[in-house]
Amino acid sequence: MPTESLPAGVLRGDRVSVAKAITEVENGDRDAESLLRAIGKKGRRSFVLGVTGPPGTGKSTIVDRLIEEYRRMRVKVGVVAVDPTSPITGGALLGDRVRMMKHTMDNGVFIRSMASRGWAGGLSGAVSEAIQILDAAGFGVIIIETVGIGQADIEIMKIAHTVMVVTIPGLGDEVQVSKAGLMEIGDIYTVNKGDLPGADAMVINLLGMVRDMKGRSPPVLKVSALKGEGVSTLFEAVEKERKKALSPQGKQVRLRSARGMVVELAKRRVLDGLDERVQKEATRLASEVVEGRLSFGEAADLLSDGEQ
Amino acid sequence: MPTESLPAGVLRGDRVSVAKAITEVENGDRDAESLLRAIGKKGRRSFVLGVTGPPGTGKSTIVDRLIEEYRRMRVKVGVVAVDPTSPITGGALLGDRVRMMKHTMDNGVFIRSMASRGWAGGLSGAVSEAIQILDAAGFGVIIIETVGIGQADIEIMKIAHTVMVVTIPGLGDEVQVSKAGLMEIGDIYTVNKGDLPGADAMVINLLGMVRDMKGRSPPVLKVSALKGEGVSTLFEAVEKERKKALSPQGKQVRLRSARGMVVELAKRRVLDGLDERVQKEATRLASEVVEGRLSFGEAADLLSDGEQ
Repeated sequence: MPTESLPAGVLRGDRVSVAKAITEVENGDRDAESLLRAIGKKGRRSFVLGVTGPPGTGKSTIVDRLIEEYRRMRVKVGVVAVDPTSPITGGALLGDRVRMMKHTMDNGVFIRSMASRGWAGGLSGAVSEAIQILDAAGFGVIIIETVGIGQADIEIMKIAHTVMVVTIPGLGDEVQVSKAGLMEIGDIYTVNKGDLPGADAMVINLLGMVRDMKGRSPPVLKVSALKGEGVSTLFEAVEKERKKALSPQGKQVRLRSARGMVVELAKRRVLDGLDERVQKEATRLASEVVEGRLSFGEAADLLSDGEQ
Repeated sequence: MPTESLPAGVLRGDRVSVAKAITEVENGDRDAESLLRAIGKKGRRSFVLGVTGPPGTGKSTIVDRLIEEYRRMRVKVGVVAVDPTSPITGGALLGDRVRMMKHTMDNGVFIRSMASRGWAGGLSGAVSEAIQILDAAGFGVIIIETVGIGQADIEIMKIAHTVMVVTIPGLGDEVQVSKAGLMEIGDIYTVNKGDLPGADAMVINLLGMVRDMKGRSPPVLKVSALKGEGVSTLFEAVEKERKKALSPQGKQVRLRSARGMVVELAKRRVLDGLDERVQKEATRLASEVVEGRLSFGEAADLLSDGEQ
């Protein structure tokens, strides 16, 4: 019996093949490029939903609720959760171990934690490639989850067709959400833990803040994901966005998302190439600076130009 | 009367000159390079303290307390607060407007908010250059403050001689701090709002978690910055680090910091050069992808190689 090739396994929607394929692109294996080529150059058919917000707002619980809704419709759901990297282990710190448990038996759900990494900091490992793989494997909905504080997380959201911003009442306050640049990027706003005091006030404040931004009026929805309250309304809002994104009218949205993918990929290629030399040269150049033989600017020039 | 040159103003420690100089490097003005050259290539004499932690933990209040302590010793203090950027305005969202007020009359204090920005996301505007300018202007202590969730914030902390991680009790929980990679980078840990329930337990948990990391044992200190409780102990811990960093034994620390500066500078040069072309080409290439004429990988190759 001939062994199935990895691209064939991915195209068949096999979860083990998908996991292997994503590991290949994450590790930057030489095979990864031919894998992506074999998967093909078709325009994407999946809906990509970005979910972001400060830590502790219950993004994962909301994502789990959305998975349940989509599985009821027999839509396959892939999740890529971008976690900050541990500087020591280099790996994502929570990982899929905990979250995957619940869906172990369901072949229509694939969850992957991915460490942000890299020289520039805050670059996602291989989000764009993972989306291509999940798309090819027939996952109709792909959710990208980020912590949503740093600029990098907001950059990743440019890959999504639709962005959901998750907040909770009393989180520092709304200024924190605003400060993180989250007021500008959301297509749907969620006040989770809606049974906490201050939830209604927060909905009203968010509505006001969001409307001030270029006259947009995205929905601001109160939910309690743990209790399941408000989830169906939230799901309807997501579904409306999905239908819009995949309709002929959604061409601009798909174009913007593809642009985000291309930029993300190009960015990583440039930085990966530089990383190795930088790690090698930086210490030597820094000691020249400390000893007064080079200015910081001169050292940086040498490091960025490659002319020693 | 001849007008004083900008480098001369900076070297004299004039705050207006310092502000102008930082604006020049932030904007990438052509004059900025000659300015930095004029300031000189001497190894740094300032102590650089990084302060990081999740949003809402009171980092700014702690920084204000440290400023007060250092001003009592007549040490000049410069603060560079790196804020997430608004994707629309491109500027830092809180800004120095609020915080500067308090110190308006004191020429020994300089506070500047700086937006993170750029193509790669999460890159600081010009932290390294600001440090060089503040150093040349005689600020003996330079504090870099970041939100400390994203990998990029952690990267910036590599510039600091000493890193203080600020937390509060009940912040989601300790997992969030751990997840953000903050357990590995701190030289001093602070549990702020120490009068809240759970503060003592958090100190004990943090002590345990930090000690598990490569056998380090940085202090974990309970403070209430608003009320001023525990501030003097915290200040002593910072002073101990400062003396260590500037002593002959601190050479490795200074070298590591200089390395962080050089890498940060080089990184920005590379990315700034790429940014312009990427913005121009990415939309066109994305539409080729959407229309099925290019794969994502091919588009990214074209964008990163510059070969069209």
